Order: sequence, then structure tokens, then C-alpha cells
Amino acid sequence: MLKIGPYEFSSRLLLGTGKYPNFDVQKEAVDVSETEVLTFSVRRMNIFEPNQPNFLEKLEVENYTLLPNTAGAKTAEEAVRTAKLAKASGLCDMVKVEVIGDQKTLLPDPIETLKASEELLKEGFIVLPYTSDDVLLAKRLEEIGCHAIMPGASPIGSGQGIVNPLNLEFIIENANVPVIVDAGIGSPSDAATAMELGADGVLLNTAVSGAKDPVKMAKAMKLAIEGGRLGYKAGRIPKKRYATASSPTEGMSIG
Amino acid sequence: MLKIGPYEFSSRLLLGTGKYPNFDVQKEAVDVSETEVLTFSVRRMNIFEPNQPNFLEKLEVENYTLLPNTAGAKTAEEAVRTAKLAKASGLCDMVKVEVIGDQKTLLPDPIETLKASEELLKEGFIVLPYTSDDVLLAKRLEEIGCHAIMPGASPIGSGQGIVNPLNLEFIIENANVPVIVDAGIGSPSDAATAMELGADGVLLNTAVSGAKDPVKMAKAMKLAIEGGRLGYKAGRIPKKRYATASSPTEGMSIG
Amino acid sequence: MLKIGPYEFSSRLLLGTGKYPNFDVQKEAVDVSETEVLTFSVRRMNIFEPNQPNFLEKLEVENYTLLPNTAGAKTAEEAVRTAKLAKASGLCDMVKVEVIGDQKTLLPDPIETLKASEELLKEGFIVLPYTSDDVLLAKRLEEIGCHAIMPGASPIGSGQGIVNPLNLEFIIENANVPVIVDAGIGSPSDAATAMELGADGVLLNTAVSGAKDPVKMAKAMKLAIEGGRLGYKAGRIPKKRYATASSPTEGMSIG
Amino acid sequence: MLKIGPYEFSSRLLLGTGKYPNFDVQKEAVDVSETEVLTFSVRRMNIFEPNQPNFLEKLEVENYTLLPNTAGAKTAEEAVRTAKLAKASGLCDMVKVEVIGDQKTLLPDPIETLKASEELLKEGFIVLPYTSDDVLLAKRLEEIGCHAIMPGASPIGSGQGIVNPLNLEFIIENANVPVIVDAGIGSPSDAATAMELGADGVLLNTAVSGAKDPVKMAKAMKLAIEGGRLGYKAGRIPKKRYATASSPTEGMSIG
Repeated sequence: MLKIGPYEFSSRLLLGTGKYPNFDVQKEAVDVSETEVLTFSVRRMNIFEPNQPNFLEKLEVENYTLLPNTAGAKTAEEAVRTAKLAKASGLCDMVKVEVIGDQKTLLPDPIETLKASEELLKEGFIVLPYTSDDVLLAKRLEEIGCHAIMPGASPIGSGQGIVNPLNLEFIIENANVPVIVDAGIGSPSDAATAMELGADGVLLNTAVSGAKDPVKMAKAMKLAIEGGRLGYKAGRIPKKRYATASSPTEGMSIG
Repeated sequence: MLKIGPYEFSSRLLLGTGKYPNFDVQKEAVDVSETEVLTFSVRRMNIFEPNQPNFLEKLEVENYTLLPNTAGAKTAEEAVRTAKLAKASGLCDMVKVEVIGDQKTLLPDPIETLKASEELLKEGFIVLPYTSDDVLLAKRLEEIGCHAIMPGASPIGSGQGIVNPLNLEFIIENANVPVIVDAGIGSPSDAATAMELGADGVLLNTAVSGAKDPVKMAKAMKLAIEGGRLGYKAGRIPKKRYATASSPTEGMSIG
Repeated sequence: MLKIGPYEFSSRLLLGTGKYPNFDVQKEAVDVSETEVLTFSVRRMNIFEPNQPNFLEKLEVENYTLLPNTAGAKTAEEAVRTAKLAKASGLCDMVKVEVIGDQKTLLPDPIETLKASEELLKEGFIVLPYTSDDVLLAKRLEEIGCHAIMPGASPIGSGQGIVNPLNLEFIIENANVPVIVDAGIGSPSDAATAMELGADGVLLNTAVSGAKDPVKMAKAMKLAIEGGRLGYKAGRIPKKRYATASSPTEGMSIG
Repeated sequence: MLKIGPYEFSSRLLLGTGKYPNFDVQKEAVDVSETEVLTFSVRRMNIFEPNQPNFLEKLEVENYTLLPNTAGAKTAEEAVRTAKLAKASGLCDMVKVEVIGDQKTLLPDPIETLKASEELLKEGFIVLPYTSDDVLLAKRLEEIGCHAIMPGASPIGSGQGIVNPLNLEFIIENANVPVIVDAGIGSPSDAATAMELGADGVLLNTAVSGAKDPVKMAKAMKLAIEGGRLGYKAGRIPKKRYATASSPTEGMSIG
């Protein structure tokens, strides 16, 4: 079970809802992914304008734990304000803190992320910050009380996968709260790798919604995350420079 | 479906039978892997000495397609002789040609592998050669009639995974017969990667039998191979240097 | 020329002085490296106890620009105090801010590093912070006035080389002050790679002092850094998936 | 010294002569590279038509050892014929055997390469085969008497660098003749890496001739190859997972 704050989830896949070709594909992808946590930008919620088209139209929202993010925020102040709007809607008390420091790389601003997280923790939120893979920043975020840490694998939507497995491993080794690898995952093997490094979960969006067949990819990700997790639990063989026969032939009778 | 010669398989995992802690674990791992093809060294068969302990003791062999290998052979001649022994047993007409040229790396000898494959094809075998990832050698093996090509990912039992994805991709692009990635796989993500490169299957042994919990790892591999295959079919997003927002916020009403 | 604050250097190699087998090897390695900047821990200076053995014994210190570091500091306060001690010695006005957040990885604490840098800038130091490869933190360090940014390639003394070339490239693209890759370099090719990514310099210690032959390695590093820099300036060929003939043979008369 | 057959070279860089912007740049690049071995396609020689433009026009050919290659050959027979033409010119007795099996990847055909090498050895040539990084094929080429082995780093002209360092290391470990890494090198750090793996030399063409500034790149490659070689000799530090302080601070008096 993945436990984040008061919540428990069987699935270790957190799925984004943006950029699907249409609502039917979105719904079907979410279904086959078996995710229990949906993430989306607060800015896309039609909280106060119920007559706007609902971007989660066909999803039965009450079946999921909602994890709104503060995408679009460039400062702690903006992120806090955005998070409060989401909570005011009554839909959620969890928030993914996302404070972007650079529009080209969409990498997070460490100082503002820390500040926003501190503030939102004070306000009683369940706080999951999207952060770089800076090992000490991740530790600091845990120390101030964040309920999970979400280091990026590579830039959002880049599909580059895990550029720095070493830092992820260090973050995971040091952590006493769940580590969810967020951003940059491109393929099922990337997701499996994250789990094999010991991550507690993976958050995906573009890798699924931007695939040629998002529904197939949602299923693929589900399987890969389960496989990666199970592989982590199973205890892999060590890497060796040279070979080891899998069919020892000593003492055999023929040849 | 994976088609090799006259055979069709739903599972794309070919599993080795060597080096399990005991027969119960071996049987359970094979079961949960849902493999349909078992591979083992001919030298370990007790073909002519039925009173010897049977290394597949608890497996109901008739439920699987057997793929004996010629492990231990250093020349084409030895490999051919070994393959014929296996066929004489009446248990199989498929063979994995394995002619090792170096005892430290257990890498295959290209010339002897080609020669043995030619000879066994003439004898009517279904021939699957274990080969290096030499792109032109793989092509040549296909041209002489091999029913599948089995390039290594890295040295047997090394768990290094796919050292040269480029050559595997070239082999797969060029091939009109199945390409089964064989040797060197260490983790579920390695297996998923092989499938995402377009491989038709993966052959494993040590990664499963040498894991701390072989049964769990067998299941993990099954999931990862399915996930990787599905991911390949689903059409992954391209890799990009910079980021792409997953939650476009233009034209939104709040913030 | 490498320009840091008021200084100009022909050499792009900054060399550490710790852990050489003896003072003769230290001196010879420094000589052949042709470095113009020596770095060392303030804590090893015998500033106030001139009768202590001098760890730079055989070096003519006046021929170098000295870059003391604050190794051993765990907080901004400690780093500031250490830096002031160094300056009080009258030997230097430049300082490498090093605030370590974790004794196992020796990775820098981003918040304390930022704080110490701010303070030391106010005090009029030439400030070069050792930082993680967090892209936005590097930007922030530049914005507060740091004279160069020193992102780590991998953990200090680990010899792992550049684990995350992407972040280094982003830092370099964004920077208007010199970027010196610091920590983790293990081999000449690592140093060359840093320069090819566009780094303005490389800071080394263990890779040289810990080599079997530190003097040879010092020379190797000098050559590799010059080669890497020149390669960066020369404009490398793009990477391509497929081949391109280097000897086009169309229209030739024989064969 | 690099010894190939009867020849000895101070430089470990073998340089191709194809595709330079013009003869002046070609000459200058060759000069600053300090190479002693020039390679070129026999098909571009104007052996029998002295009135044709000479593609080495401005080079004083007598100052170099010439290493013509059999580029354009698709079979052993063509390669042998091409090599004999070169020798008949009286300019050289060394030949780079290049038998390409695939026009997209320009990867070598192992069987035809082996056959051509055998034949040319019988004819008394100094034979340097361009080969894949198949470890056992490289061994076989040495066993038949080849004077050096030239495994590719990646496809010709691709600039991908060393895709499979493991196989290169295995080839080098096994070899008693020089191993020259040939094809695919893109940057100085690639060349340095080859030397650090223990290669005896590097053969380049496109990486230099195709650079924006070929003369600068020729110099860069020279430096990187020297740096890489020296680094190999110097004995690099081992890679470690965690950090090691370069400035031990125990027992120090301040802080």
C-alpha cells in the first residue's frame, strides 16, 4: 500500500488528466490505468463557473482522490493562493506544489517551492511538492513536514526518463515519507526503473496522454509500475562485469 | 502472438530452468511467469539415464515447448552433436544454438555459431542462434534460414542489461524473423526496454533464478514484458530536450 | 581567458591540494597541471599557528590565486566564519562556499549555501559557491551576485564523472557568469566532457591526487581540458542515428 | 610508441582525409593533428590517371604512412581487388579492410571482412580490419594474423561516440596486437574515452573534417588523445557510490 498522509492507495500510479485527445479517451485511459489519484491544474478547474466545460467531464470524480497542482505559479505566493482556491472548492485537501522557475525547462524553483510548502503545511494541507532531484532540498522538504516528495526524472513532458538515477536513489535512501517520481517519464521501462530504484510511486501525464494510443499506454504503465515494484521487492541479481553460466555443465554425462 | 517456425506463443517470455534454489521454487516461478517455452542445457538432460535425478522434476514438461540449448559447446561440431542428442530424445525439434568462444565473457563465437546453425537447418531443426549484437551477423543468420535471432543484451548472467540498444534496434529493423533478446537482462526494466526497442521476446534465466525471491521476480518479468510490449504498440512520445507543459494554462479564468 | 571577478586566468583547470602522497608529488602535479588557481580547505591552513607544518609546503603560494573553501561547514554561519578567517590571513579575497548537508554524499545544502553566499557577497568576497546541479538554484546564486557557479558533476571524490549532463547544459545556457564544474570528475574524458558541454572551467582534486601517478594525471587533465575546450569552440558534428560515408565513392573511376 | 607491423608511430591519432571543405583546410588540419598515418579510400586515388585532381593535393604524402581503405567494397573479393590496386601504386603496403554489409548503417560484414583479411595476409599486406565490436570476431582476426584490430565505436560518421564500452574493453583485454578505435567518434571526450579504455589509437575522419572549424578540432583531438592515453597510464581513481572528502578536516585547529 502507498500511504500519503491519511490516504492509502493500492495503485502506485498517479495520473494526470491534461492533453488527452478527447474526454472518452481520457476516461478510458484513467480506467485501465487503475489509478486512484488524479492530478490536474487548479487553473483548469471550473470551480466558480459551473457553466464552463468540465475538463474531467466523463470521469466520476468521487471515485478518485484528487491531487490538484499549482501549475502556472511562479512564486510561493501564487502557489499558495492557487492551492487555497482548490481547497475552497471542497473537492480536495491534498495539493501538489508546483512553482516553476523557468519557462523553457519548467524546472521547479527550490526556494519558492520550499516557502509555498511551508505555508501550505501550516494551513493544514496534505502537501506533495514537485521538486528537482536536489538531495538536500528533498530532505529539507521532508523535515518541514511534507507528506511525500516528488522529484522530477527530467523536464516535464520531455520523455527523457530518469537522467540522474543516483540522486533519486539518494533521495529514496534518505526519505521517511513516500517518494513519487514525477515528470519526464516517457516509457514503461522508465516507470519500471523508477520503481526498481525504490520509488513509492510514479506520477505521469504526457507519457500517457501524448502517446499514439493513450489507452494502451495507460495499461502499459500500470503493468510496468507493478512489474518494477515487484522486481524491487524480489531483490535483483547484482551486476557483474563478466559472465556466469546459467546452465552449469560440470559433472554432466554427455558431450 | 509470437511465431517461431511452426509454433505460436501468447507469452513473449522464454524462461531458463537453471540454478533455482530448489524444484518447488523452479516450478512456482515457471508457473507465475506464464512462459510457454522452457530452455535448458542439453547436457543437463538425463536422456539416456532415466534413473538420474530429473532437473525439471516437478514441471509437467508436456505443457511447454522445449528449447534445449547447446551450452558447453565450443565448436560448431560439438553444438551439432549436442543438438542431435536432444532431438533423439523425442522431446523437441527446436534448438538454441550456443557456441561459446570465451569462458570469461561467455560471448558467442560468430563463425562457429553460423556454421552450426547452417548444419542444423539442413538437418531440419527449428534453429534459434544465440548471437552477439553484430548487426550483419544477425542478418546473415536470418538469410541462411534461422527461425529467430537471439542477440545478447550483455554477458550471460551479468545482469548488466542492454549495453548497446542501437545495435538491437538495427537488428530488429532489419529482421523478418522474430528477435528474442537473450542474455544479460537483470531487471524488469531491462526486459521492458528490450520490448520497447521492438524485440519479439526475451529469454531469461539468472535474472529470475538468481533473484532473492525468484517467484516474485518471475511475476515481475511477466508484467514488465507485457508492459514493454504494450508500450511499444502504444507509440511512445518523442524525447525532447526542453519541457512541455502537461497542464496548459492559457486562457484560464483564475490565478 | 577565464574571468572570475577581477581575475583572469589562461588555464581553465582549478586544482585542489588535498591528499597527495607527499609534498614533492603535490608540487610536481601542480606544476605540470599549469593551474593558476589552488583550492584547499581553510581548516587546513595554519594561519594562526605558523609553527604547524604547512600543507602547501613546497608550493610558491605567491604564484597562484588562492581559492580557500569552507569544507567542514554544515551551516551558513560556519561557512561565513571560516571564510572570514581565510580572508583575515591576507592571502585571499576569493572563497569557495561549501556547506555540506549530508556526510555520506557530501552534497551541498542549497538553502545554507545560498545564505552563506549572500552574506559573503555583502562582506565583499569574490564568491564561488559549490552547488548541486539544481538549475534554478544556480540561477538564483548568479542573481544574488556570485562571481561563478560551481555545480557538482557527482559526489566529491566519487569519480563518477558527469551523471547529469542535461542539468549542466541548462545551467551553462542560463548563466552569465563562469560555470566551473566541481566535484566528481574521475578521468580526463570526464573533464573534456565538462568543457564540451560549455563549462568555463573544471575544479579537480581527488582525480589527480588519488591517481596511481598524480603527476601524469595532472598533465592528462590539463590536456583533456584544453582539448575539450577547443572541441567546444570548434563546433562538433551533430549526432546521427545512421552512418554517413567519410569517403564518398560516387563518380570514382576504379573498382 | 604505437607499433603496427613494422611501423612505429609517436602519434596515436590516425586521420582520414575525406570531406574537408578544401585542400588548405585539409592540409592545416593534418598538420596540427600531428598524425603520422593518413587514411583514404583507394577509390579516390588517381593512381592510374595522374592528370586527375589529386585529393591529397597539398599534403606532402612522403611524410606520412599511408593507410588506404577499401571503402565501397561489399564483398571480400572486391576488397582484395581494391587493396591490390593500392599496393600496385607503390605507395603503401598497409591496408584498412573495410567490407560494408549494409548501406544504411555502414556496419562491416563479419564474414567477408574475415575472408578478405585472410587473403590479404597471404598476399603479404599489413592488414588492419575495420570490424564491429564483436569480441570473438576481433579475437579471430588477431588469430589469423591481422596486425591491428579496428573495432567501430558507432556507425561511421554518426558522431555517437562509444556506444558499447564493455565490448571495447573486452577486445582490448584479449588483444596482443594494437586496437585502434575506428568510426563513430564525435568529440574529443569520445576520443579520450577510447584511450582511457586502453585503446592503442583512434582513427577519425568526419569528426574533424565535418566540424565547423576542422583545424581547431584536429588540435582538440590531438590533445584529447594524448590526455586520454596519459590518463590511462596514470591509473585513475576507482568509481565509488558515495563521496570521499578531498580535504580531510579531522584534527584541524579551527572551525
